[in-house]
Amino acid sequence: MPTARPDTPGVLFRRLPQRRGRRLDIGVDVHLGVPVEGFETTNDGAVGAVVAGDATLPADLVVLGLGVRPASALARDAGITIGPSGGIAVDARMRTSAPNVWAAGDCAEVRHRVSGRPMAIALGTYANREGRVAGITMTGGTAEFPGVLGTAVAKICAYEVARTGLRESDARECGFDPVSARIESTTRASYFPGATRITVKAVADRRTGRMLGGQIFGREGAAKRIDVMATAIWNEMTAADVAMVDLSYAPPFGPVWDPVAVAARKAADLVEPDG
Amino acid sequence: MPTARPDTPGVLFRRLPQRRGRRLDIGVDVHLGVPVEGFETTNDGAVGAVVAGDATLPADLVVLGLGVRPASALARDAGITIGPSGGIAVDARMRTSAPNVWAAGDCAEVRHRVSGRPMAIALGTYANREGRVAGITMTGGTAEFPGVLGTAVAKICAYEVARTGLRESDARECGFDPVSARIESTTRASYFPGATRITVKAVADRRTGRMLGGQIFGREGAAKRIDVMATAIWNEMTAADVAMVDLSYAPPFGPVWDPVAVAARKAADLVEPDG
Repeated sequence: MPTARPDTPGVLFRRLPQRRGRRLDIGVDVHLGVPVEGFETTNDGAVGAVVAGDATLPADLVVLGLGVRPASALARDAGITIGPSGGIAVDARMRTSAPNVWAAGDCAEVRHRVSGRPMAIALGTYANREGRVAGITMTGGTAEFPGVLGTAVAKICAYEVARTGLRESDARECGFDPVSARIESTTRASYFPGATRITVKAVADRRTGRMLGGQIFGREGAAKRIDVMATAIWNEMTAADVAMVDLSYAPPFGPVWDPVAVAARKAADLVEPDG
Repeated sequence: MPTARPDTPGVLFRRLPQRRGRRLDIGVDVHLGVPVEGFETTNDGAVGAVVAGDATLPADLVVLGLGVRPASALARDAGITIGPSGGIAVDARMRTSAPNVWAAGDCAEVRHRVSGRPMAIALGTYANREGRVAGITMTGGTAEFPGVLGTAVAKICAYEVARTGLRESDARECGFDPVSARIESTTRASYFPGATRITVKAVADRRTGRMLGGQIFGREGAAKRIDVMATAIWNEMTAADVAMVDLSYAPPFGPVWDPVAVAARKAADLVEPDG
């Protein structure tokens, strides 16, 4: 969207604080809570604009991000059990309800290791591992797909964003009583050239202190830290324990207390074992 | 060392294979197995050269890296127990053998979580956490320092190198029967701009498959992955389990199978449960 009216609501990034004189704005206006009502076409039939709320936004190209649904109709028509997520129900060996029929990839459900719920999450990392498990088990070997944490990472221009486990709202919806801490730190020692701001959020269970989820936002070198949170949550560590893990340190790579450890420690401070 | 004779032995980096026409050589000649025999001084008393083996290497500045020893003499003189590493012996609450005397930091021993052995490792991350534990326990609170993995990371010009847990030789020396796998992969999806080569080594116990250690070498974005290996080893995961952890994936951040997962999977392939 090359232009947008200044009065349109919800401009992401613009609200973020500035640091060292560099604006975090990357020239993208984000219109939140504004439904797309239609498209205007040019005389030659191509798209010319998006009509959204009060605004008509000129456009040469429109990309729709509408989510992904499992393509499980073939299995459904064959009488194979479909799970609550709409994906094909499978066990840890990727077996469906029909004898000698396996399913793997975006069409199949995965079990979330924190919530215990079956979900449909279309990620190549799962499809790849599931295919491996299905291939081994259908040829007589033993392998199990151990479930997922919903770990994901994306880069948007200079920005990196990542998540794993349950968000605070997910956790509440799944019956946990979560606490959460959001901290700001730097990707390198604060005095080291190239250090940029990183925001880490850690979600933990209020009573047990178990880490339930994490989110990271920042620039180069920020988001891949989510893998530490994922490995910790995978092992059902408490936030207090995560804060003490022997993570690497040198000024080009982070502060003495890695941002992930700081977030975990702050979340641990909110835990109420007897609460 | 601005110059060196071409016939001096052991030139690091130069032996590494080339990739995409870029030489990995960073202009540093490394002389391995050559003892420093002395220094030559200039007429005004400053250092002028290093005499090492057959070579005399002109130098304006000499930096000696001779290792670190715990400064535990004060404690020793006071009759406090010194451990086998030369550091002050402490328990998990950082208490020494003398009532009401705590020790923390480079002077104190740490317990290695994989070998179980007390060690002297002078790292700021340990000193910081130990100081925290000592402060809490000496004021009546409860806290324990959970031990270390010897995780470390360094940047040398464009190169990053990291380690955690036991090296293969350490593992053998500590009574394990290790297997190890060394893999090469890329820091981003291989087709993504900025992707560089990363080498990951995973060490596991031959019989149980437990991950014992890991090492990483590469360029920007390589070494911080050691934290995933550290978190896995901290939790006593097997190499096979590490290969299935839900690590993040997107092309700017790595291949579909993160290099750490690939190394773990290759090490798991070498495990012999009945061997």
